Amino acid sequence: MKVLVTGAGGFIGAMLLQLLAEGGLGGGQSVAAIAAVDRMLPAAMPGVLKMEGDLRDESIHARIADFAPEVCFHLAALPGGAAEADPAGSRRVNLDATMDLFDLLGAIPCQHPRILVYASTIAVYGSKLPDLVTDTTPLRPPLIYGAHKLACEILLADYTRRGLLDGRALRLPGIVARPRTASGLASAFMSDLLHAVAAGEPFTCPVGPQATAWWMSARRCAENLIHAAVMDPGTDSRRAWPLPVLRLSMEEVVHTLSRMYRVDGAQLVRYEPQAMLEAVFGRYPMLDDQTSRALGLRDDGSAEELIRRALTH
Amino acid sequence: MKVLVTGAGGFIGAMLLQLLAEGGLGGGQSVAAIAAVDRMLPAAMPGVLKMEGDLRDESIHARIADFAPEVCFHLAALPGGAAEADPAGSRRVNLDATMDLFDLLGAIPCQHPRILVYASTIAVYGSKLPDLVTDTTPLRPPLIYGAHKLACEILLADYTRRGLLDGRALRLPGIVARPRTASGLASAFMSDLLHAVAAGEPFTCPVGPQATAWWMSARRCAENLIHAAVMDPGTDSRRAWPLPVLRLSMEEVVHTLSRMYRVDGAQLVRYEPQAMLEAVFGRYPMLDDQTSRALGLRDDGSAEELIRRALTH
Repeated sequence: MKVLVTGAGGFIGAMLLQLLAEGGLGGGQSVAAIAAVDRMLPAAMPGVLKMEGDLRDESIHARIADFAPEVCFHLAALPGGAAEADPAGSRRVNLDATMDLFDLLGAIPCQHPRILVYASTIAVYGSKLPDLVTDTTPLRPPLIYGAHKLACEILLADYTRRGLLDGRALRLPGIVARPRTASGLASAFMSDLLHAVAAGEPFTCPVGPQATAWWMSARRCAENLIHAAVMDPGTDSRRAWPLPVLRLSMEEVVHTLSRMYRVDGAQLVRYEPQAMLEAVFGRYPMLDDQTSRALGLRDDGSAEELIRRALTH
Repeated sequence: MKVLVTGAGGFIGAMLLQLLAEGGLGGGQSVAAIAAVDRMLPAAMPGVLKMEGDLRDESIHARIADFAPEVCFHLAALPGGAAEADPAGSRRVNLDATMDLFDLLGAIPCQHPRILVYASTIAVYGSKLPDLVTDTTPLRPPLIYGAHKLACEILLADYTRRGLLDGRALRLPGIVARPRTASGLASAFMSDLLHAVAAGEPFTCPVGPQATAWWMSARRCAENLIHAAVMDPGTDSRRAWPLPVLRLSMEEVVHTLSRMYRVDGAQLVRYEPQAMLEAVFGRYPMLDDQTSRALGLRDDGSAEELIRRALTH
């Protein structure tokens, strides 16, 4: 199988490439070649066909068509905070470039529809959620990022129905621990909290101690993306699933970090809740993830495991 | 108020213009000017500013920006059957041109966000519906037309959230009676059935006698569109509502036509169900339209009233 990763220079993309290089797709599927697309890629990527450039460039399109991947992991995106600040950019990257990629891959002749694993987001759900989020909870994205991602979920299901792609969209929760750089993600504070407390540094948390979020380590996220490429989604017209998540309050995370890293998290963390961040990222309720678990998708197991995976590279 | 109608040369657009000319927007809102956009418009449109051309043309964009409507009825679309046959065309018209219009209207400075009444469709729902369709029924569009319309509903809600537009999307059911010409609508048989039986002509129905559809006359549809522009949708983030509908089987419609036009419908109509049409257009269940009714949206009242309005011009 030839595998393409877009957004390969990003945080999750790098982890995904590492796992693909180590273990392929699993499930007896061998990987014949891996191609990586991003505007910037690491200099050394042994065994990976590098396609450095904008996903919207015609030259990149030509190289992708030439490579003709059987599996594509589409991670390239303008993240939530950056998208909200640049709606036109979000339309270009998160909507138009994504549809162009779907059109491009759908048009390459193939015996079976090409598998498209799409990194969607829990930001499709909305900010006034019921106590239990289920498969029938209405989707009301509270930010343009989630609106564009949801639109692409719907379009991917339609490409799948028309037999052009075999789409599998996963709704990613807060993925930790991102590097401590400006990522453009509004939820970056979740990663920053982990880094700071583990290092024994003070941290100002922009949501309150009881704020609950949905968490996953980058490693488990990449494992789930790979699993999504090989799992059997059945014949249901549905083509988007939430990842099973650990639902943890900030306080629980700080408590676990304190125990693991022998620090006094209660002293280190000061809470200064911002209403907008709290509403969007601090009120995640219970998630009914039975359908996702039945497909073989998994959470990190425990807060300890989450933190261990998140902070070990 | 300055009012713009896109798709103004179409079946519903013409009815809407007629009602706007007769009674304005109602609710004490006077109409200062009406502009109509379409690739072809009737020669005589007294009192209407004609903008003949493709909605995607820059010259049309410039004229719309110059006109600066406070209310826009966006009806222009590539309909269901035509969209399914031309997916790239559907993307251009139903998705890209619609977003361009949203961007254009959202960028014209204005004291209040401009009102955008969007003609969405019951084709957003899907083909394997529960016995009662409610506000929480998952949306799984069975055709590209519905997928693109649903994507635009989501985007319109986001433009509304960002304060750029005041969006109100209505999900239109099968609107009758369209003229007996190739409209590109897969549901055109509903109109053709009415014309044929009322005229005492034989008709081959592509769905069975027990097939149930959601019906509305063009006149009631246009009344609802106008009401949507002046109603108070409250502060709910939801910005799309199904129109209240009459749910009628083909047999009920034929029976009512027979009585009203003194013909023998049972003799005239031969049923030759096509599986795909039956699945998409013949299995509409009950619709919980309480929210829509509370907003003042209405159905035709009875099968007789529906047919009378549909066949009287």
